[in-house]
Amino acid sequence: MFERPSHRKPNEMRPVRFTTHYTMHAEGSVLVEVGNTKVICTASVIEGKPKFLKDRAEGWVTAEYGLLPRATHTRCDREAAKGKQSGRTMEIQRLIGRALRAVVDRTKIDNFTIQLDCDVIQADGGTRCASISGAWVALALAIQTMLDKGQITESPIKGQVAAISAGIFEGVPVIDLDYPEDSNSETDMNFVMTDDGRFVEIQGTAEGEPFSEVEMAEMTALAKEAITQIIQLQKEAIKA
Amino acid sequence: MFERPSHRKPNEMRPVRFTTHYTMHAEGSVLVEVGNTKVICTASVIEGKPKFLKDRAEGWVTAEYGLLPRATHTRCDREAAKGKQSGRTMEIQRLIGRALRAVVDRTKIDNFTIQLDCDVIQADGGTRCASISGAWVALALAIQTMLDKGQITESPIKGQVAAISAGIFEGVPVIDLDYPEDSNSETDMNFVMTDDGRFVEIQGTAEGEPFSEVEMAEMTALAKEAITQIIQLQKEAIKA
Amino acid sequence: MFERPSHRKPNEMRPVRFTTHYTMHAEGSVLVEVGNTKVICTASVIEGKPKFLKDRAEGWVTAEYGLLPRATHTRCDREAAKGKQSGRTMEIQRLIGRALRAVVDRTKIDNFTIQLDCDVIQADGGTRCASISGAWVALALAIQTMLDKGQITESPIKGQVAAISAGIFEGVPVIDLDYPEDSNSETDMNFVMTDDGRFVEIQGTAEGEPFSEVEMAEMTALAKEAITQIIQLQKEAIKA
Amino acid sequence: MFERPSHRKPNEMRPVRFTTHYTMHAEGSVLVEVGNTKVICTASVIEGKPKFLKDRAEGWVTAEYGLLPRATHTRCDREAAKGKQSGRTMEIQRLIGRALRAVVDRTKIDNFTIQLDCDVIQADGGTRCASISGAWVALALAIQTMLDKGQITESPIKGQVAAISAGIFEGVPVIDLDYPEDSNSETDMNFVMTDDGRFVEIQGTAEGEPFSEVEMAEMTALAKEAITQIIQLQKEAIKA
Amino acid sequence: MFERPSHRKPNEMRPVRFTTHYTMHAEGSVLVEVGNTKVICTASVIEGKPKFLKDRAEGWVTAEYGLLPRATHTRCDREAAKGKQSGRTMEIQRLIGRALRAVVDRTKIDNFTIQLDCDVIQADGGTRCASISGAWVALALAIQTMLDKGQITESPIKGQVAAISAGIFEGVPVIDLDYPEDSNSETDMNFVMTDDGRFVEIQGTAEGEPFSEVEMAEMTALAKEAITQIIQLQKEAIKA
Amino acid sequence: MFERPSHRKPNEMRPVRFTTHYTMHAEGSVLVEVGNTKVICTASVIEGKPKFLKDRAEGWVTAEYGLLPRATHTRCDREAAKGKQSGRTMEIQRLIGRALRAVVDRTKIDNFTIQLDCDVIQADGGTRCASISGAWVALALAIQTMLDKGQITESPIKGQVAAISAGIFEGVPVIDLDYPEDSNSETDMNFVMTDDGRFVEIQGTAEGEPFSEVEMAEMTALAKEAITQIIQLQKEAIKA
Repeated sequence: MFERPSHRKPNEMRPVRFTTHYTMHAEGSVLVEVGNTKVICTASVIEGKPKFLKDRAEGWVTAEYGLLPRATHTRCDREAAKGKQSGRTMEIQRLIGRALRAVVDRTKIDNFTIQLDCDVIQADGGTRCASISGAWVALALAIQTMLDKGQITESPIKGQVAAISAGIFEGVPVIDLDYPEDSNSETDMNFVMTDDGRFVEIQGTAEGEPFSEVEMAEMTALAKEAITQIIQLQKEAIKA
Repeated sequence: MFERPSHRKPNEMRPVRFTTHYTMHAEGSVLVEVGNTKVICTASVIEGKPKFLKDRAEGWVTAEYGLLPRATHTRCDREAAKGKQSGRTMEIQRLIGRALRAVVDRTKIDNFTIQLDCDVIQADGGTRCASISGAWVALALAIQTMLDKGQITESPIKGQVAAISAGIFEGVPVIDLDYPEDSNSETDMNFVMTDDGRFVEIQGTAEGEPFSEVEMAEMTALAKEAITQIIQLQKEAIKA
Repeated sequence: MFERPSHRKPNEMRPVRFTTHYTMHAEGSVLVEVGNTKVICTASVIEGKPKFLKDRAEGWVTAEYGLLPRATHTRCDREAAKGKQSGRTMEIQRLIGRALRAVVDRTKIDNFTIQLDCDVIQADGGTRCASISGAWVALALAIQTMLDKGQITESPIKGQVAAISAGIFEGVPVIDLDYPEDSNSETDMNFVMTDDGRFVEIQGTAEGEPFSEVEMAEMTALAKEAITQIIQLQKEAIKA
Repeated sequence: MFERPSHRKPNEMRPVRFTTHYTMHAEGSVLVEVGNTKVICTASVIEGKPKFLKDRAEGWVTAEYGLLPRATHTRCDREAAKGKQSGRTMEIQRLIGRALRAVVDRTKIDNFTIQLDCDVIQADGGTRCASISGAWVALALAIQTMLDKGQITESPIKGQVAAISAGIFEGVPVIDLDYPEDSNSETDMNFVMTDDGRFVEIQGTAEGEPFSEVEMAEMTALAKEAITQIIQLQKEAIKA
Repeated sequence: MFERPSHRKPNEMRPVRFTTHYTMHAEGSVLVEVGNTKVICTASVIEGKPKFLKDRAEGWVTAEYGLLPRATHTRCDREAAKGKQSGRTMEIQRLIGRALRAVVDRTKIDNFTIQLDCDVIQADGGTRCASISGAWVALALAIQTMLDKGQITESPIKGQVAAISAGIFEGVPVIDLDYPEDSNSETDMNFVMTDDGRFVEIQGTAEGEPFSEVEMAEMTALAKEAITQIIQLQKEAIKA
Repeated sequence: MFERPSHRKPNEMRPVRFTTHYTMHAEGSVLVEVGNTKVICTASVIEGKPKFLKDRAEGWVTAEYGLLPRATHTRCDREAAKGKQSGRTMEIQRLIGRALRAVVDRTKIDNFTIQLDCDVIQADGGTRCASISGAWVALALAIQTMLDKGQITESPIKGQVAAISAGIFEGVPVIDLDYPEDSNSETDMNFVMTDDGRFVEIQGTAEGEPFSEVEMAEMTALAKEAITQIIQLQKEAIKA
């Protein structure tokens, strides 16, 4: 009989928890936990914007991602010590940045940069998705700080954005893979969706067997269900 | 009335051409042209394999990607001179590598590394997809060289792989965006598929509006049709 | 009348707290808090040792240090993104490594490297001292793991080591400067001491006025008193 | 009896061919072929000039050089991936830049930079010389573009510049060494000359035996003869 | 009976010699010799100051340190070739900079940067201390040059600064360790003091056994005596 | 009437002086002075050889070059701090290495590397030529050390090598340009020759007007005369 290593049902997400105001200096900060995956997300409001926007009346939203060296099962080298970020890190931080920009009207934050930092302190699969879901909360808190300080008069936030992974494990589509599942899955997909059920980003990779259109539809359905729940938890988190 | 800047129909791909044996030193080489996008793909057969495979009876397949500085409308800085590859470059070369590994049985090339190099000499949109379609041809030629030299006795190639982009341009799903279309599209998707119609990789990004499940299904249909044609052209290229 | 910004008495240290087993993958891990300064310290046990020890029957103990970008009042650039560690980071991580090596008999861990990682998630002054005090706890836990696993049969730990800062604030010697105090102090000293009251490292810098021998003696006395307390808290932490 | 590996006569250059407008984006572009050596040369016209010229009424002409990784017999590492350009690359691109600046009156292109890129797609000896001969053609085409666009009103080109190698192979001075000859020659000289028969640059290296003044005179005579031919081919190329 | 490898008495410093105007281009330059340790110190006066001082009416004083590759017993890698400065180098140059800033009133050199370069041409222990003692002489000479040229009207120098090492060798506190002594000492301390006998910097490291307060007091006494002598030699050097 | 800025006659070289055993650790060391240009050259004998020679019974000879930051009129950035060597540095150190290898029979130093370091402590034109002339002396001294120690039984030195610059200054060929002359010359040539009057390397660059064959012959004659003198001084230096 089919059993996930985590003993979860195929459509059962791990518990998601947002601890807001987790660190004291950032304009917005949150610890997001998805099962044993834990990520500190901060949003820093910085005056100024990158040069390539100098002729456009828009601000900027960007993201960086990192793993503490022993966030993982075996220690990975510190990227600062190696002197460069890996391709994986770059890929992830570009994804987070795009996801968040999709729900921000940047004309409303002209001359500001909102810098998101997602630092994984403990990894157990799904760190990029957790980062996106958490980054939105940090961003929303930072925007509130800007409004409170009078730096802006209107919220630039057009909607919510959250993310979840899905995969094919032993032939069965499942949601929210933890590390042991991810290491053994045939396909790994990441879905980034807005609160109105549309897609901001889809990334699917067949790590073993290629996957079919039917499998993809099944994973999409699982993701929609899960993201609806995360969206709700985000709402509660920023209300608190 | 809807009209693409390229005056192509929504499902009309640009002409694809493979010029095999384009350079003389590589074990496999091809110039792939997709309209005005031109990429030199070479496959180099190198003895040895990376350390992380030392305990597994498998070889390795990996890829690197580059743009000549003036492959683009305005000159982009030479990455070798800047001293690092951009996040975009890393993302693309990781994608090419994964795509090709999906159709290679690496247990049949133990102790060899096949290094794919995709160098864009002229860019007009769709360079990563053209690179994947071309890399497969270069790989197939290199495998033939290995068989001819007796380095291996059986082909490790499990199938073909090709790629194409699709997008939403002025609300209409279209295939194979060129640069002017890509710059103005709302969504940009890249499909990597095998010759049996399954997916190896899907990457979709909403650059403007998020996209719906229906739009995604339409782009998927366009991609399947286009990839079928490319797969056929690959077959002819390696026969020649 | 003299008043510290923190309203503490000159010899009053901030509350120190050790939360052991803070992350799940490392052989030893702890969150150390000194007031609002929070540092995750992990000790990773790695088989093998650096080349320069190949002819000596000793293992190695070394440390790395990092700040999350928004651990500080204003965001500091991510060192991984800049491509190099600052001089300050290097200085601190070398100090942590030396401090911990002072209490380890490395002949008892031959062929192992213990890698300490001290990552500041929130900074409010005294991060290098907190890192040393925390790193000892992480190390002790990792050694216990090694003993439990039978990797070693005898503990290499010769004693405890802890650290505290002292300074001259408005002419008065004070212990354990927080960030506002540190920014305005004339002298900043860091004391690293063992549980038998001897010195492993002393670093004193006159940031304003040079300091006298008398002032130095006073700071030393404050440090001894504080370190005695931290040593006691470490003992309790590893017992728990 | 003396026979070059290429079966050419000592004073016989390989066929030289210029294919102008080889790529579509650059203001000037050419594919230069010298036997099997093939280099794409582009000239990009960029507004602005380097800081060190800010107090002088002159523009700038500079060059970069690269090899596609598999332009060579065995694959060489991609410099962008290694994170730095080799000493050889730097030496060559500095040479190309100096050679081209020698025939440009830079006071006539003030506030412009002409960036030459020479990218070797197939190497068989003599890549630096081919690059110089091709770069002049790309430059001349780019200047024509500038005149056509009205960016300048007068051509800054003072003359033509071309380059060829010569060497001592089995004791005999020969012109235009291909790779097998170059690898086994005792001396390798590169001559850069103008259309009036004067020298812009001479670089001679004894890789085996030192060479004498007589040998040097013989190589110089061979080079003059060959460069006269290349100069003529350049003229025809830009007329086309 | 106790005997230092150098046959010096515990409180006997090596001969110190300053050769001023050692190189011809720098505004201030000196060769400082402490026994066989030889360091070229230059002070360069540069117009402008770092950005972080733009809102403060102060100039800047900073230092860099280097070792010629064969200044040492066995050749050490050239840091320029390795592409980065070691942690040791960074630590030392930060120390030199802080030491010199302690005796300069930077409000009197607004809009200037004084860049100190300390390059060790022969190392035999104590290079960082020799660098500080020499850098002060180079600085004083450069200030004189600034006064002579009318760049400033008043000297910013508030006092002298010099440095010496002390250590515990075979249980005995000794001054000014040369390389064989340093390699075998249990404790290594560096004292940086002003001409009024106060401390600018103290750095002590127990490389073997931790050290006691008594030992520290003895080393401090030795250092005060030695620094008094160096201060006197500096005075004579700049008078010459 | 023609007058060089240095008031020297066209064929008058600056005084050349070799101070052997200038530093104490290197197997061979010398300070070479050519007028005000001063370079410390050391030759380090290192066991082992680079990987690319592992299948050949030969050792290796290589060189590195550096400038102290304030060896020049205005301070140049420290390459170690910038994190990379300039193209000029790389070009020079490659030249020095080739020059010295030309006079060494490397089959006689198998399994050894001789590392030459040429560090300019004061620059006044001609630093690369001075480096080559000095490096030969350092090399010869190091070979003597190897013979004395019994590391080799036969000298690998096949001859002497020395270098000098020549140029066209105000239309007149002159030898050994100092910095003011070099900055204003139209052509700059560097000659590297052996003691039997043959060429190891010739590098000529027209910095202003291209130069003719006649001018080149005149500069060659001046160089031969000068190098004869340097060769004699080298002989005396190593005899001392």
